[in-house]
Amino acid sequence: MDFYRGRRVLVTGGLGFIGSNLVRRLVRAGASVTVIDAAFPDQGANLFNLKGVLEEVVLVIADIGDLEEVSNYLVDQEIIFNLASSTSHIGSMQNPFKDLERNCSSQLRFLGAVRELSPGARVIYTGSRSQYGTPLYQPVDEDHPTKPLDINGIHKCTVEEYHRLYHQLSHIRFTSLRLTNVFGPRHQMLHDGHGFLNWFIRKALAGEELQVFGDGSQERDFLYVEDAVDAILLAGATGECEGRVFNVASEVPVSVAEAARAVAEMAGVGWRCVAYPKDRLSIEPGSVRLSSRRFREATGWSPRHTFLEGLERTLDFYGRHGHHYFHPAKGRIFLERKLD
Amino acid sequence: MDFYRGRRVLVTGGLGFIGSNLVRRLVRAGASVTVIDAAFPDQGANLFNLKGVLEEVVLVIADIGDLEEVSNYLVDQEIIFNLASSTSHIGSMQNPFKDLERNCSSQLRFLGAVRELSPGARVIYTGSRSQYGTPLYQPVDEDHPTKPLDINGIHKCTVEEYHRLYHQLSHIRFTSLRLTNVFGPRHQMLHDGHGFLNWFIRKALAGEELQVFGDGSQERDFLYVEDAVDAILLAGATGECEGRVFNVASEVPVSVAEAARAVAEMAGVGWRCVAYPKDRLSIEPGSVRLSSRRFREATGWSPRHTFLEGLERTLDFYGRHGHHYFHPAKGRIFLERKLD
Repeated sequence: MDFYRGRRVLVTGGLGFIGSNLVRRLVRAGASVTVIDAAFPDQGANLFNLKGVLEEVVLVIADIGDLEEVSNYLVDQEIIFNLASSTSHIGSMQNPFKDLERNCSSQLRFLGAVRELSPGARVIYTGSRSQYGTPLYQPVDEDHPTKPLDINGIHKCTVEEYHRLYHQLSHIRFTSLRLTNVFGPRHQMLHDGHGFLNWFIRKALAGEELQVFGDGSQERDFLYVEDAVDAILLAGATGECEGRVFNVASEVPVSVAEAARAVAEMAGVGWRCVAYPKDRLSIEPGSVRLSSRRFREATGWSPRHTFLEGLERTLDFYGRHGHHYFHPAKGRIFLERKLD
Repeated sequence: MDFYRGRRVLVTGGLGFIGSNLVRRLVRAGASVTVIDAAFPDQGANLFNLKGVLEEVVLVIADIGDLEEVSNYLVDQEIIFNLASSTSHIGSMQNPFKDLERNCSSQLRFLGAVRELSPGARVIYTGSRSQYGTPLYQPVDEDHPTKPLDINGIHKCTVEEYHRLYHQLSHIRFTSLRLTNVFGPRHQMLHDGHGFLNWFIRKALAGEELQVFGDGSQERDFLYVEDAVDAILLAGATGECEGRVFNVASEVPVSVAEAARAVAEMAGVGWRCVAYPKDRLSIEPGSVRLSSRRFREATGWSPRHTFLEGLERTLDFYGRHGHHYFHPAKGRIFLERKLD
């Protein structure tokens, strides 16, 4: 962590789930942190996420593609954690054009400015398991074809490719981390569009029965957010990661039903299986296990938390701070914005 | 060719190079053809390309993404040859955002309308050799990773992915043909941004010396446009092609120097090697040979013209009709358009 002391670091999406957990660690490590976050109402930005460190960072509320607003803050950054992403799997099928604008257009503008204003900066991009689609073999390694099941996944690949190309042209130095299902504190709790595990926790804390779509037998290799942040920090500090794409996952398969049972037991509620909604079924890849072997070998990373430890910490966090996340307006930032 | 008699067929980009050669064949085959073409001034649209068949087609001058203009013409089409593409390798590096708008945005809007208005239509998309980037092995098959060397190549992949996803969701039935360097009659002759072979011919017919970048040793497997049109027509008529991606190339390697010498000898001019311009070097993949084995096996296709036969026909065409292509305004369509 000494690596980050005094470094000029930019975190895009730094008010959101993974971004804010990363910012907190960077501030603690003594980095000079700038946060850019668009605070889209349907995404995860929450001021409470940075409570206690908000005074230590430069906070810019703007779309990363809005260069008039953000250019000043892109000058001479050493390490850029490019986590800004508008994630909505079902939403991207209903409004693919909005997904294109928010992800590809904004990132293309942003990277164009970065290569001018912070040439040679190390840029860590966070991709996603969703880039692979339905596995052709397991565990899925980084050479597995990318056949996303929704438009958002396609655009995740396109944005990763922008990074790869600008790296190849020596404009930036990039690493992509394709993250599996990440869960933990500071995840938005207003809708179930960003993964079901935090949504289970919200339901459980409200005393409601959990609903598992299908028979719940499909497996995921959930990753606790602090372990994901470890991985992101290591990638940013390790030259050997430059120009490469890595999977990051716990490599411990847990079925959706097991996850529901664990949450239900900890919170003392029930759970049951229900039929899949149709719009969910088409974007459901079945069991997915990623191999993180390459990333472990390149960095020595391994997750520090078991699934159950992570779950306990998450339940504890929302048990204490849930009111900051269950309220539709608290901690959120409202801007004059054109409706889209 | 009987397959196309009486079929409702849409060709996007049908005023351009490959599109117009395709339209001519479709009209001859008795298809009911609609052409949509944006006639972007820097692309290949030319009214002379459809001379003699213009009266037989429905011609819509509009961007395929401009749904107000084109929706009426997307209803109940049986086969859609989706060739519309704004191609500029160097331009896409200088103005990546324009490339995104013209390709991804327009195609995303277009396909969204197609799946509503012509559900289940067969859609043949023409991709490109440029999707592969620098070969990791040769000949390049369809499983070779796609690592384009420019933004335009990345967007070619993204648009192919839109097709693949909508196919997977049963909205359309798609085939992608990744075409190698295609040359022949009806190629634009106003700039060298769409391949060097036609540009050599333009120079040679003007009595100028040909300039080969580098030592000219890098190989291509050029395809004569009529052979490319054969392939496109076969793909549209072959159910077995649905849901698949195919390379289409001659599989006969010809070096750039050999190509220059052949053109120079036919036209009686000289040629020489010059240093690479810097902006060209970064997008130069070296020798590329594609394998078309899968497509040959699926359709029985094979090219009917040797490289030299194609070259002779091309020189003959421009010798007779060159004035329609060398003039910056003749045969072109000027619209009131916002400058971009």
